[in-house]
Amino acid sequence: MNEFELIRTYFAREPVTRPDVALGIGDDAALLRPPPGQQLVVTTDILVSGVHFLPDVDPAALGHKALAVNLSDLAAMGAEPAWFLLNLALPEVDQAWLTRFCQGMFELAHRHGVALVGGDTSRAPQVTIAIEAHGFVPDGKALTRAGARPGDHIYVTGSLGDAGLALKYRLDKLKLTPVELNAVAECLDRPQPRLEEGLVLRDIASSAIDVSDGLVADLGHILERSGVGARVELKRLPLSVIYRAHLKDVGWDLALANGDDYELCFTVPPANLPALEKIKSRFPDMAEIGMIESGSGLRIFDADGKLYAPKAAGHDHFR
Amino acid sequence: MNEFELIRTYFAREPVTRPDVALGIGDDAALLRPPPGQQLVVTTDILVSGVHFLPDVDPAALGHKALAVNLSDLAAMGAEPAWFLLNLALPEVDQAWLTRFCQGMFELAHRHGVALVGGDTSRAPQVTIAIEAHGFVPDGKALTRAGARPGDHIYVTGSLGDAGLALKYRLDKLKLTPVELNAVAECLDRPQPRLEEGLVLRDIASSAIDVSDGLVADLGHILERSGVGARVELKRLPLSVIYRAHLKDVGWDLALANGDDYELCFTVPPANLPALEKIKSRFPDMAEIGMIESGSGLRIFDADGKLYAPKAAGHDHFR
Repeated sequence: MNEFELIRTYFAREPVTRPDVALGIGDDAALLRPPPGQQLVVTTDILVSGVHFLPDVDPAALGHKALAVNLSDLAAMGAEPAWFLLNLALPEVDQAWLTRFCQGMFELAHRHGVALVGGDTSRAPQVTIAIEAHGFVPDGKALTRAGARPGDHIYVTGSLGDAGLALKYRLDKLKLTPVELNAVAECLDRPQPRLEEGLVLRDIASSAIDVSDGLVADLGHILERSGVGARVELKRLPLSVIYRAHLKDVGWDLALANGDDYELCFTVPPANLPALEKIKSRFPDMAEIGMIESGSGLRIFDADGKLYAPKAAGHDHFR
Repeated sequence: MNEFELIRTYFAREPVTRPDVALGIGDDAALLRPPPGQQLVVTTDILVSGVHFLPDVDPAALGHKALAVNLSDLAAMGAEPAWFLLNLALPEVDQAWLTRFCQGMFELAHRHGVALVGGDTSRAPQVTIAIEAHGFVPDGKALTRAGARPGDHIYVTGSLGDAGLALKYRLDKLKLTPVELNAVAECLDRPQPRLEEGLVLRDIASSAIDVSDGLVADLGHILERSGVGARVELKRLPLSVIYRAHLKDVGWDLALANGDDYELCFTVPPANLPALEKIKSRFPDMAEIGMIESGSGLRIFDADGKLYAPKAAGHDHFR
């Protein structure tokens, strides 16, 4: 199978077609029609075997996740997703692997109506994936990291730390029951980008970020870009029943600093709290964890009101 | 140096600012304003150490080339370049290497007014670069691979095969004088994307492609997508003086099938030949190499009018 057959067989017959794709896979570049009056939102993430995922990962989970982490960035901007490009470098053409990879990737693409419009394939010593995702947001409506103000309430969607539990299990550092493992593995392998939440939060949140590097690091980005500080209470962190059952063993740091959660962390000005209340019937999964304050830096308080210092500060590839 | 310092130090102070970048590096995604009435042109290429370039390559040349190959794809569509994103995976943070890499990349970006608006960095066992470039083209004006018709004349910009000569030298398979090496190494290390030619050819050419995989493969893509055949004459291939001096040793195949030339191959309908003549004062470097015919496939003829069959068909990572 050569490079062109590979593209034809696996990538050029993907399930999503969109009228705004004038020319997709198969030329020197894709031709796309962004909607008038909207800003284009563009993000990219690279995943390397042995760095971002274990070499024996289920390829369907990998295909899902490689796209999901990019859609999660769009969600954090309040963007509506539209198109993506795929760079895929592989040690060899393993057709069973590719079939599963595409299954996972295109299933998620289909769910959100995102079309694969281009990319590149290559040989490499280890599997490497770089996806770039495009979306739209009405002019001036994007959620950035820079809008948090003192007095804003801080929220997180879903729960934190379950992906960390699954990773700890796979690295043989934690025991889980099969039922527990099933639940948390889903969080690690198939994170669901919070795209609907992002759209709704456009008119409610003052800032947002997705929790990919861990809450401490990612909320830290909001604080830095917004020029504010914050206080967060450990007891308010949204933890799953499974995490709570293992809290004594694993402590708070998987929830605070492991990352890979792909939940949204966002801030809401007091004036918008009634609007947030209204959407909670649709999105009950949003927990208030603290407040934005003047000053700088993040202070975390335990149940006794004492300052808590997490051991790890978040994921950093070059530290 | 951590990941965020690395981005701040090397990538967030790049030389190009554009009014159509609402938000660049530093958030979950970039916010961009495509011009109304134009199509967005998007392309991406991945380069892996040991596959696309030698591990001891000059990092400035690599920075240049990683961006150049993407701009070359935009040129082949007749697009005006605007923005790019950079995925960069490295075994370690080598500051001297990064400084040189950025020098090469940003020099080219500056020359064409292209702004770096986002990206991702990671650790990886070997240097891996995936760049994604964005440009614009007025609706309906893009040069695709699908427009060639029987009777169209086939042209190539610049000369073919010099990058192949340089590679052969570096692999110890060819001797060159220092002066020769200097000239051909420039073609391999610092290909100049034919962006101006692409813009002008919008109203002249019926199809275009950039010669990245070799003329035989790339012209082959035009023939396949256009549903036509072609004849090309060896004696008309644009070869440099240096290539001609080594023609007896290296034969025609470096010019036909090595790739890495990043010239444009394009077709011109007879009615547009006068328009092509007019631009030749600005772009004298365009050689007619053959004709589009009905049928399918590429036939190459030598000086005696005999069919010539190249030994290699072009670059393919998975063959």
